[in-house]
Amino acid sequence: MKTLVTGGAGFIGSHVAKWLLKDQHEVVILDDLSGGYVENVPPTAKFIQGSVTDYPLVKDLFAAEQFDYVYHLAAYAAEGLSHFIRRFNYENNLSGSVNLINQSVLHRVKCVVFTSSIAVYGSPQPPMVETMLPCPEDPYGIAKYAVELDLQAAHHQFGLNTIIFRPHNVYGEGQNIGDKYRNVIGIFMNQILHGHPLTVFGNGEQTRAFTYIDDVAPIIARSIENKAAYGEIFNIGGSQPYTINELAIAVCQMMGVSPNITHFEARHEVVHAYSSHEKLAQYFNISCPVGLQEGLSKMAEWVQRVGPRQTKEFAEIEIPFGLPQGW
Amino acid sequence: MKTLVTGGAGFIGSHVAKWLLKDQHEVVILDDLSGGYVENVPPTAKFIQGSVTDYPLVKDLFAAEQFDYVYHLAAYAAEGLSHFIRRFNYENNLSGSVNLINQSVLHRVKCVVFTSSIAVYGSPQPPMVETMLPCPEDPYGIAKYAVELDLQAAHHQFGLNTIIFRPHNVYGEGQNIGDKYRNVIGIFMNQILHGHPLTVFGNGEQTRAFTYIDDVAPIIARSIENKAAYGEIFNIGGSQPYTINELAIAVCQMMGVSPNITHFEARHEVVHAYSSHEKLAQYFNISCPVGLQEGLSKMAEWVQRVGPRQTKEFAEIEIPFGLPQGW
Repeated sequence: MKTLVTGGAGFIGSHVAKWLLKDQHEVVILDDLSGGYVENVPPTAKFIQGSVTDYPLVKDLFAAEQFDYVYHLAAYAAEGLSHFIRRFNYENNLSGSVNLINQSVLHRVKCVVFTSSIAVYGSPQPPMVETMLPCPEDPYGIAKYAVELDLQAAHHQFGLNTIIFRPHNVYGEGQNIGDKYRNVIGIFMNQILHGHPLTVFGNGEQTRAFTYIDDVAPIIARSIENKAAYGEIFNIGGSQPYTINELAIAVCQMMGVSPNITHFEARHEVVHAYSSHEKLAQYFNISCPVGLQEGLSKMAEWVQRVGPRQTKEFAEIEIPFGLPQGW
Repeated sequence: MKTLVTGGAGFIGSHVAKWLLKDQHEVVILDDLSGGYVENVPPTAKFIQGSVTDYPLVKDLFAAEQFDYVYHLAAYAAEGLSHFIRRFNYENNLSGSVNLINQSVLHRVKCVVFTSSIAVYGSPQPPMVETMLPCPEDPYGIAKYAVELDLQAAHHQFGLNTIIFRPHNVYGEGQNIGDKYRNVIGIFMNQILHGHPLTVFGNGEQTRAFTYIDDVAPIIARSIENKAAYGEIFNIGGSQPYTINELAIAVCQMMGVSPNITHFEARHEVVHAYSSHEKLAQYFNISCPVGLQEGLSKMAEWVQRVGPRQTKEFAEIEIPFGLPQGW
């Protein structure tokens, strides 16, 4: 089986690629290294540095490789920042996806596995359930939802098989902790490594359910073996919600520092976001998930070994009005 | 008041521009003439030939003109074809819109009026009502819905005022009858002028409610005067559904020919699509709508005067699999 993993030098993508390699897939990774690292690429995968938004490259790649499966994980998943970088967001997260969908149809790929996001739901009463009709509230969630809908339209029109996952708040070894716009656990750990206070938007009583990488990567990688999952959408990730304040305390404990927390002004964001995983459990064997303490301890051990990362500014903010504090 | 009308050389856009000029707006039209005609541009409007997808041009235009209002009607509204031209569809109908949204926020435009489409709804039980959560089924509807959601996100994040209309099956004088991929009434009339049989997909028992242009253009143009409408979404158009078979007979009558109808294989499309206009009537003065007979008679008189149009093939079909007959 020849399999494309986009975003395979990124956090979730590189873990999915590793599981695919274990299962004897011949893996080709396409990643522009905008958020990922060459070190994340498994040595037995073929690596192509490039963007899903580069259509001539995507076309040539599909023609040359004739993929059986496509795992599309490339995205810039900075939900809060997406308000300020609308063009970049849709270009990266939607247009890039459409390039892959076109080529997957044309080359009769057997199944496209797409990582969408809990961001598609917007603000319903949690837990989010797959039967809810999504209503995303930020450009990131809108782009992810548009891709979901386009995949479904491509299935009805052309018979393209798809499996859609909606992960949330995934963390673990290999994560980019140098991006101040996304992934609160990585941000907190990097702040601690730099000796800075942890920054929390608003009162910190927002809730999220955090997901250890090993609880999602193998399920995503092996999903194609379950034909009943074709055409379906699954929430995936941790089920236990924590407040951001609780998270901050837990991260400090695991990193062995006493809490030093600065509260910034609240930003526009969904206040309570966690989802039901009953459907996932009906389709896949889910082992007992890694708890937050255990997962944080593994990640803390890793970040303390590899050290802090320098934080990059996002180069082309399109609308600089009312950027949240600290950005 | 200085006002931008995108797609102002197109059918609905040129009518909206005329009503705006009557109301003393200083109108600037941006249109790439991909579907519109210079002849449609009202002589007192300033015309700029260019595309909403050309971001440097859009940026310069907003900086130079400092618009008070933006009416965004530019789109390629070939719903059925959108399955086969996904990249083109999102580039034109979503990315172009995002360029305008960015600039409208940056230049503090007072209100953006956007013509979405009934296509956002997908296939609920008709009539479609604005309180239904949309679930579009083709790339055209997905792009329109994504723009709606992005406008709403821009309102919440940046305070951008918006009014969204969802018109459907608009027809009348000035319509492009030379596009075989869209607008069934124009297609039928052009087929008659060429002496060809009318082509109907499937059994022709699909239903649509047709909308005469004068029943929508003035309401759209004057909507900005009604502050209560800001932030709202409105269905707009005719309320009486007809089958495509009934429409074909009516068009033949008005064009003075006897019906000669060819049935093509059914294509993927929403079977029954018509919408409720109760909400529109609560916000705007709606005069008695022009009936189908009267509207068709006016349009027939016009097309018989201007004559047939040559049908252009769409140049860059991206996925040529299973294109409907006649395309």
